[in-house]
Amino acid sequence: MTADGGQTKKLTSAVVGGSGFTGALLAELILRHPSLQLTHISSDTLAGTPVSSVLPRVRTELSFCRHDEVTGVDAAFVCLPDGAAAPLVKRLFDDGARVVDLSPDFRLRAEVYAQWYGEHPFPEMLPGVYGLTELHREQIAGARLVANPGCYPTAALLALEPLRSLALEDVIIDAKSGASGAGKAPSERTHFCTVDSDVLAYGVAGHRHYPELAAGLGWDDGGPSLTFVPHLVPLQRGILETIYVRVARPPTAAALRGLFSCAYADEPFVDICDEPPRLRDVVGTNSCRIFPMVDERGGRIVVIAAIDNLLKGACGQALQNMNVMLGVPEQEGLP
Amino acid sequence: MTADGGQTKKLTSAVVGGSGFTGALLAELILRHPSLQLTHISSDTLAGTPVSSVLPRVRTELSFCRHDEVTGVDAAFVCLPDGAAAPLVKRLFDDGARVVDLSPDFRLRAEVYAQWYGEHPFPEMLPGVYGLTELHREQIAGARLVANPGCYPTAALLALEPLRSLALEDVIIDAKSGASGAGKAPSERTHFCTVDSDVLAYGVAGHRHYPELAAGLGWDDGGPSLTFVPHLVPLQRGILETIYVRVARPPTAAALRGLFSCAYADEPFVDICDEPPRLRDVVGTNSCRIFPMVDERGGRIVVIAAIDNLLKGACGQALQNMNVMLGVPEQEGLP
Amino acid sequence: MTADGGQTKKLTSAVVGGSGFTGALLAELILRHPSLQLTHISSDTLAGTPVSSVLPRVRTELSFCRHDEVTGVDAAFVCLPDGAAAPLVKRLFDDGARVVDLSPDFRLRAEVYAQWYGEHPFPEMLPGVYGLTELHREQIAGARLVANPGCYPTAALLALEPLRSLALEDVIIDAKSGASGAGKAPSERTHFCTVDSDVLAYGVAGHRHYPELAAGLGWDDGGPSLTFVPHLVPLQRGILETIYVRVARPPTAAALRGLFSCAYADEPFVDICDEPPRLRDVVGTNSCRIFPMVDERGGRIVVIAAIDNLLKGACGQALQNMNVMLGVPEQEGLP
Amino acid sequence: MTADGGQTKKLTSAVVGGSGFTGALLAELILRHPSLQLTHISSDTLAGTPVSSVLPRVRTELSFCRHDEVTGVDAAFVCLPDGAAAPLVKRLFDDGARVVDLSPDFRLRAEVYAQWYGEHPFPEMLPGVYGLTELHREQIAGARLVANPGCYPTAALLALEPLRSLALEDVIIDAKSGASGAGKAPSERTHFCTVDSDVLAYGVAGHRHYPELAAGLGWDDGGPSLTFVPHLVPLQRGILETIYVRVARPPTAAALRGLFSCAYADEPFVDICDEPPRLRDVVGTNSCRIFPMVDERGGRIVVIAAIDNLLKGACGQALQNMNVMLGVPEQEGLP
Repeated sequence: MTADGGQTKKLTSAVVGGSGFTGALLAELILRHPSLQLTHISSDTLAGTPVSSVLPRVRTELSFCRHDEVTGVDAAFVCLPDGAAAPLVKRLFDDGARVVDLSPDFRLRAEVYAQWYGEHPFPEMLPGVYGLTELHREQIAGARLVANPGCYPTAALLALEPLRSLALEDVIIDAKSGASGAGKAPSERTHFCTVDSDVLAYGVAGHRHYPELAAGLGWDDGGPSLTFVPHLVPLQRGILETIYVRVARPPTAAALRGLFSCAYADEPFVDICDEPPRLRDVVGTNSCRIFPMVDERGGRIVVIAAIDNLLKGACGQALQNMNVMLGVPEQEGLP
Repeated sequence: MTADGGQTKKLTSAVVGGSGFTGALLAELILRHPSLQLTHISSDTLAGTPVSSVLPRVRTELSFCRHDEVTGVDAAFVCLPDGAAAPLVKRLFDDGARVVDLSPDFRLRAEVYAQWYGEHPFPEMLPGVYGLTELHREQIAGARLVANPGCYPTAALLALEPLRSLALEDVIIDAKSGASGAGKAPSERTHFCTVDSDVLAYGVAGHRHYPELAAGLGWDDGGPSLTFVPHLVPLQRGILETIYVRVARPPTAAALRGLFSCAYADEPFVDICDEPPRLRDVVGTNSCRIFPMVDERGGRIVVIAAIDNLLKGACGQALQNMNVMLGVPEQEGLP
Repeated sequence: MTADGGQTKKLTSAVVGGSGFTGALLAELILRHPSLQLTHISSDTLAGTPVSSVLPRVRTELSFCRHDEVTGVDAAFVCLPDGAAAPLVKRLFDDGARVVDLSPDFRLRAEVYAQWYGEHPFPEMLPGVYGLTELHREQIAGARLVANPGCYPTAALLALEPLRSLALEDVIIDAKSGASGAGKAPSERTHFCTVDSDVLAYGVAGHRHYPELAAGLGWDDGGPSLTFVPHLVPLQRGILETIYVRVARPPTAAALRGLFSCAYADEPFVDICDEPPRLRDVVGTNSCRIFPMVDERGGRIVVIAAIDNLLKGACGQALQNMNVMLGVPEQEGLP
Repeated sequence: MTADGGQTKKLTSAVVGGSGFTGALLAELILRHPSLQLTHISSDTLAGTPVSSVLPRVRTELSFCRHDEVTGVDAAFVCLPDGAAAPLVKRLFDDGARVVDLSPDFRLRAEVYAQWYGEHPFPEMLPGVYGLTELHREQIAGARLVANPGCYPTAALLALEPLRSLALEDVIIDAKSGASGAGKAPSERTHFCTVDSDVLAYGVAGHRHYPELAAGLGWDDGGPSLTFVPHLVPLQRGILETIYVRVARPPTAAALRGLFSCAYADEPFVDICDEPPRLRDVVGTNSCRIFPMVDERGGRIVVIAAIDNLLKGACGQALQNMNVMLGVPEQEGLP
């Protein structure tokens, strides 16, 4: 199962829900993964169609199969919308696969899930192990089902973690996301003439990543004030979050810097920067780049974090989690 | 009916099909037109909804009405898809309105229409007066129904007209269009993540503007070779066409220049330029900017023409035509 | 001096510094202004060049003159960089003109100016009347020199004004601006390949609009905590600011709404919206659109404001101020 | 020198001129190349600066050196402007290195070079071996100096090669290129506000790639008519060329298809497509995708070709050529 050992048998793996942005990208990643073999890519609407005719960058001989034809795989990635994912995750889990679910279906406690998405069919399975790899590596290693984090919470929780020791008192997350975050389904909102030359704040009345952020901070039963406003900006890939934080014990600039450097010293996919990160430095990579600074005038800390929403915010982290679950090197197959 | 005479009663006018890009823009233009009053804006799906709630730039108290509620108007602009337009055009025409039809339904001869769109319900009305204002002003002035040209043919036919006296022998039109040309309906093709950072040649097997181009050149029963390849480029508005032409009697550079300058000397909406036009110089205006040059090396003429596809290529020319039909100054209400 | 009275003599006016984005746009606006006549447009580097050859959208017979050739005008708009503006403003003011200065040279108190820009040559003239029209209309009407606000402070101060009665306790301004805000000078930062597909937080160590914001809030000698982080987004025109505010006396949602509606009930250029504004609704207009909301979860108020940085954030407001100074209708010549 | 033999010593290699787009990207590629070791990256203006501080994606400990410090390397890539490249190419060649020159300095015959660029310092070295790998692989294999083709000619010559057996009679190349083609130097032309939302035909009086195209077709002493019009479109990377061709012996659609498929059957970096290629399918790869079609109506052949201008149009092909020169697998180190 090592990278250079061609003789080792590769593990079979499936992408369930292969017609969207994440499914397609995961398939691409798996095809280049030294320990995984892509054996299934499913889509009920495209079943029977050669994959490469729909996704020219996915160089495979496979045709799409139906979701219910995915059985007997070692590793399964579920890329379906909320609600649709849960039954398939359950079936694949019962079937013995290691499962990374990219939907929100296993991220929250049952009662919180119900509040935002409706009743969950398997509340006893909630919450799943939360797959923010850097923060929960041990649980992930022992799990057979991992709930892959949402794109916004991934960047925010990585950016906030080192500050928790200072006692967070107030958190505002102002996020800017490209259009791929809205998914591949055509709508007025994703029309080129809507997105181009515009910036839009959306979900202001309550975005579904809010409870995930609260849960990730351990605040789902209450806690310090937390505000989250996502914005759509005219670009394809990438999320940049500017996070405004008050803490009980304000650090010096040097101490702040030290806190972040120490926290992520050994992490291959987290970079602490000396200046604000740019999307261009993370797009196409599985990295999260973080710039923390003391804002003297405002009396607070500002942290700016950037990720590729489709990689570290979705497929890349999913593969990173699967690598941890399978015991292969964590960076395998990741750009 | 003059611009400064507030006492003159304005003419009633309707936009039939107000939910797309062209309908909305026409409504905006009419609201600022000194001789026209917007009395109806119709959409069967939006009927009853206040217009300004859907189209914030259209500052009116009107609500959308149903198409069949549009009656008794002096001037009607029909902004519906091919096939859907014809019956409404016919009814409004019979109702006594002056009609500008922005669809392709009255642009072609019956047998050509049938070949590209299917049988026409009123073949005896075909072809309508073709509303390329600069070339057919007199017929337009006497007409009650004008078929407004397509966006690609507008730029191409204006660019080619002065060369006809040299005997055209071969014409290639390489067109680059922004995404608004594909209409407001969401589709995979108009998704931001499809259009951004990409260029796509489309309709290569035969674009519906081909027969309109041929007809406009008088070649629908055969003629010199004609090639048309449209491309989608990542911007919202504007068409730039690079046209490669061979003529029987090649002119000098000075003669070529003279030919174009003379042809459009008195035209307020056609500018002959000394260097290739830019989209930024025409977007937001009703102008067509044209740069003709002798290509010594290639032994041909290259003409580059630019228009705003939504103005000179649609709404602006529609209003220009209506001005001519109504006998008001041709530039009235046009940017 | 009224719009329809052709017999009234127009006032002579000059654009000093006509080669940048703002100078060019102001010239365009003046050419369409019913009470102003454009008599000078200056640029020391372009002196002698016909304006329309450089700026095709500015349809005038004028050639650029040198700055020192601008004399004897009724109205002057100074569009020069900080430092370069002050001497010209002084000369034109002494020459008897009404002057709107678009640079930062007369916005701040002398000691604050010195701290951010260096010593001011005419500290006794500081601060000038601050030209945020809606808030300082009376002083502007009586002034002969108006310091036109910066683009970021314009949107922020309009968005914050109605909240001041609730006692502001903490303010964070997260701004997203298009690339025209960085000016016309080519640099690595404004290269298409730098801006496209990227988002960048900049000026995090201290942006020059910070002291202007503090001054506008009356906090230049200290006050509640204030944070300002501008971001560059990949579009040409427009600023959207998401503003996070804590107040001493939190209002209900209805009271908040009422506060904003009342404050701007009679303002033609401020619109209070029911949902987050879009750049597309303000670009090309002189409007500021503002959406205020109570953020229950975060225990604060969020206000989202949008303007066209080149119009309400620069040229449009400059003209609005000049209209007030000249006593002509405030909306004259404004889109 | 094979990919998997870690024990084999890597060849030393230099990027001469590392501060532009191509230099930076070549350095990135070399760092991932199994047989090459990046030992020098030079820039006279940046000498002494750590490379990774300027180019964060180039993960190396190297600092920039001066051009004259590059000596004793096995392989050198020269990424300098025309004129500046020639002396360095000569010196490195004399020094024993294998050299790929990405400038135009060794692409043309001496008299043609003189006409377009001025006198060449080493006319006796002209023309170098022309590095269009697929067409000149044998000469490249035996060469120590290869002139890497320009981006436009690369796509055009690959697209035209299979048609030469049909006797070309007339060729028009309408090219659309992203802004990186204009280089990294800031100018008004590359300003975001110039490029965004615009399309521009440029170089219409004679683009420097014209003689290279003519030479590549063997027409530099005369030949069939040839027209080339490049356009700048608002995107970063990629070239799409629509090529209009008349041949003496027009093929059927099937024969045309066969001609292209055969010509490139064994080429890993040329793909013949069933529909027009998209930039998104080639950007980030070293592939050229080509779609040939018979245009019945126009009586000609239309070929559409797409490449990434920075990869197959520059750095990728440079590395491909170096692989051939060094005798390592041609695909090594290429995406």
